[in-house]
Amino acid sequence: MDKPRRPRAETPKGFRDYFGPEVTMRKAMLDAIAAVYHRYGFDPLETSAVETVEALGKFLPDVDRPNEGVFAWQEDAADWLALRYDLTAPLARVAAQYRNDLSSPYRRYAMGPVWRNEKPGPGRFRQFYQCDADTVGSASVAADAEICAMLADALETVGIPRGDYVVKVNNRKVLNGVMEVAGLAGDDRHAERGIVLRAIDKIDRLGPEGVRALLGEGRKDESGDFTKGAGLSPDQAEVVMGFTTAKRDSGAATVARLRELVGASAIGGEGVAELEEIAALLAAQGYGPDRIVIDPGVVRGLGYYTGPVYEAELTFEILDEKGRKRQFGSVAGGRYDGLVKRFTGQDVPATGVSIGVDRLLAALQAKGRMQGETSGPVVVTVMDRDRMADYMAMVGELRQAGIRAEVYLGNPKNFGNQLKYADKRASPIAIIQGGNEAAAGKVILKDLILGAKIAENATLEEWKDRPAQVEVDRADLVAGVRKMLGQ
Amino acid sequence: MDKPRRPRAETPKGFRDYFGPEVTMRKAMLDAIAAVYHRYGFDPLETSAVETVEALGKFLPDVDRPNEGVFAWQEDAADWLALRYDLTAPLARVAAQYRNDLSSPYRRYAMGPVWRNEKPGPGRFRQFYQCDADTVGSASVAADAEICAMLADALETVGIPRGDYVVKVNNRKVLNGVMEVAGLAGDDRHAERGIVLRAIDKIDRLGPEGVRALLGEGRKDESGDFTKGAGLSPDQAEVVMGFTTAKRDSGAATVARLRELVGASAIGGEGVAELEEIAALLAAQGYGPDRIVIDPGVVRGLGYYTGPVYEAELTFEILDEKGRKRQFGSVAGGRYDGLVKRFTGQDVPATGVSIGVDRLLAALQAKGRMQGETSGPVVVTVMDRDRMADYMAMVGELRQAGIRAEVYLGNPKNFGNQLKYADKRASPIAIIQGGNEAAAGKVILKDLILGAKIAENATLEEWKDRPAQVEVDRADLVAGVRKMLGQ
Repeated sequence: MDKPRRPRAETPKGFRDYFGPEVTMRKAMLDAIAAVYHRYGFDPLETSAVETVEALGKFLPDVDRPNEGVFAWQEDAADWLALRYDLTAPLARVAAQYRNDLSSPYRRYAMGPVWRNEKPGPGRFRQFYQCDADTVGSASVAADAEICAMLADALETVGIPRGDYVVKVNNRKVLNGVMEVAGLAGDDRHAERGIVLRAIDKIDRLGPEGVRALLGEGRKDESGDFTKGAGLSPDQAEVVMGFTTAKRDSGAATVARLRELVGASAIGGEGVAELEEIAALLAAQGYGPDRIVIDPGVVRGLGYYTGPVYEAELTFEILDEKGRKRQFGSVAGGRYDGLVKRFTGQDVPATGVSIGVDRLLAALQAKGRMQGETSGPVVVTVMDRDRMADYMAMVGELRQAGIRAEVYLGNPKNFGNQLKYADKRASPIAIIQGGNEAAAGKVILKDLILGAKIAENATLEEWKDRPAQVEVDRADLVAGVRKMLGQ
Repeated sequence: MDKPRRPRAETPKGFRDYFGPEVTMRKAMLDAIAAVYHRYGFDPLETSAVETVEALGKFLPDVDRPNEGVFAWQEDAADWLALRYDLTAPLARVAAQYRNDLSSPYRRYAMGPVWRNEKPGPGRFRQFYQCDADTVGSASVAADAEICAMLADALETVGIPRGDYVVKVNNRKVLNGVMEVAGLAGDDRHAERGIVLRAIDKIDRLGPEGVRALLGEGRKDESGDFTKGAGLSPDQAEVVMGFTTAKRDSGAATVARLRELVGASAIGGEGVAELEEIAALLAAQGYGPDRIVIDPGVVRGLGYYTGPVYEAELTFEILDEKGRKRQFGSVAGGRYDGLVKRFTGQDVPATGVSIGVDRLLAALQAKGRMQGETSGPVVVTVMDRDRMADYMAMVGELRQAGIRAEVYLGNPKNFGNQLKYADKRASPIAIIQGGNEAAAGKVILKDLILGAKIAENATLEEWKDRPAQVEVDRADLVAGVRKMLGQ
């Protein structure tokens, strides 16, 4: 008979564990961003990880099992539940559910994991943290300007100095105006406008030529599949492409160029005016183009957002393992309509930003800008198993004094193992008290950091000058440890 | 033709949203507990919410859809995934998966939501927070003593003063010894021992008489269903029941009574000795019976844990809506074996505690011990829509000065609505600048807290003495707000 197979000790594909400093660094980043959001008047909201599929609303009614892109399961014969895939969909549900209780406008921030049922890849996980701030119920572009300023503050707070990032602002309405000029205005051109939006949104991946092909007849990809294009003439396509390359050296020049491109289009003119107003509101608060710029080259999310769109870019280079410049692009937002309307039928304007905290953290770590705790706890070793109470009293005193400390809880027989343990714990000090020391009312403090340095490369003078271990009175344990820690 | 039905804006049954102070209070509690755990040398660990069902290992192979108690779904033809139902099962998986990399012993803490697919009830949700600390790889009862001390520290840190809680310690081995004495020692009495364990574990619900029935022939419940008992004679049952009521006035007397009960049983003697040793180790650190006591009446979890068992109880009463004493009991732990062994085949002793943060928070709130932020942001009102840049400059200055502030972003037409908004936001101050003030370089600060008080019950003298609004130079905005806030 076969023995039952042991279970595999593995995370599911695309999930991972976070240890020690990885947890505390992310927490420090979330706390710092939350403090900025809070100062701006945003209130915290924590929704549950689980929503009804109906509330998330991403699925077609004819799909039997709605697990495309999300993790979903059937609760009973009727209801499907799913893990949230972002923090915006739950906000829309909350804004509808509590619309009579929430202040209007409602500024809220939220942070926590979201889940995507997608193919995992290097650095791409199926659970990751987002840190969002949104204003629901304000149609004013002042709300957008505020989000941009707050985003700049948040980035600086987590350790990205001014000059190392830029917040870029674009506007979907300007693109709509450009499409009008390109002859795509009518109700009967809805499909073509969709093709243009999707094409623009793919410019990072396809490049200008790929987008141009999709604006025209269509594009054949590497696999030979053909994607039908919007059927624009080369001149019309040129107008649309002009939008993505309209950035000039100054905000005023960019605005002038955009005004040219949108011509007489009312919606386009509105979009350009909004960009100007956002820039003016930000300038009044001292946020100039060193921090926030108008950049029509920002096309990501233009298909989703309905007005201003913003994206933060790190201006320093981060290379991946293969030496290629790593795309960052996980801090972005914009104005969206219709999310609350799904529930209530009423238009509720909203705008907000999402910070992909895990990627931001990875970028800062790659740049050496973020460092976790490097020193571990003081370790009280166990020389005499029968005197565990004495060792626990020592560790208790240290903790009472606010010093991170632990007593060795493994098998104490082999003292070498205890020092190896202290080493693995990155312990700065080992406390030692054998029978002789105990009888004399003494305790030995071993400076493990200095000891490691000496072992590496100290001269004899240094060694004599500052021995790596000292004996102190048992009563002076805390004071001695403090001194050795340099506190 | 029917219009498509709008989606319902609702959380799934048994889930809820947390707003503002609910989020920040829980965060404050988690942060405070984490600081204690950290000082004790515990390292943070964050596993993903999703595990393979195989790793969680709660399910029988013959159950087709393993959703009893957990939320689970099928990833592909082979793999089932599930949301973690506690933080211990993922720890066991981590301890096995990274056994060559982690220090041994491994002290870790973890905090985060867990999910239970159970019938929701009043105050019972299907997602709730736990905050755990465990030591993996130490067989020493010093590890158990440490957890008890840390638990006492954690409770005091979150605002439960000494005397308002007690940590009770019991030991499964003592019960095993008692069962030996009652004649349930042999391999052939495995089933009876199981019945005894389950019966003991239900004492809170069934009362002593119900347990006694289950120790004897069996018990018929209210519905008429009969549960077969362990078949003990009344004398044998009395020995087992004696265990649960063995607590005496002092720890020494309790230990003496337990020693009597376990008689010559080796395992029982070992359990009693462990309890004595834990008490001695704690006393050496100054944790006396005012904080931690030996209490054989703690029976919860005796079926799960293998050695020492601990539970924190709040000694002040909290009544539920119906005036009944509310059961608290969501801070508990103990020593467990076999969890890591499932994966590796090797015995790895472990001990730890779990704090049910949401219930602890509810208890403290019910007692008025925990209060969230009560004051909202300063609100800059919008008197003149065209001068939004001026108002944003004001709010920018306040934020730069670290003062939580926001500009009104709704439709500014109706000033009354703006003050209503400030009221809903619990704003302490409204900033007002109309055209006249702007021309004079002035700004009005309206003290909304004082204003509300005056409106309620101020005398004319008080009103004259401290008017609820002042006009200050625009340049003194920040200083004026600070003064009014009493900073």
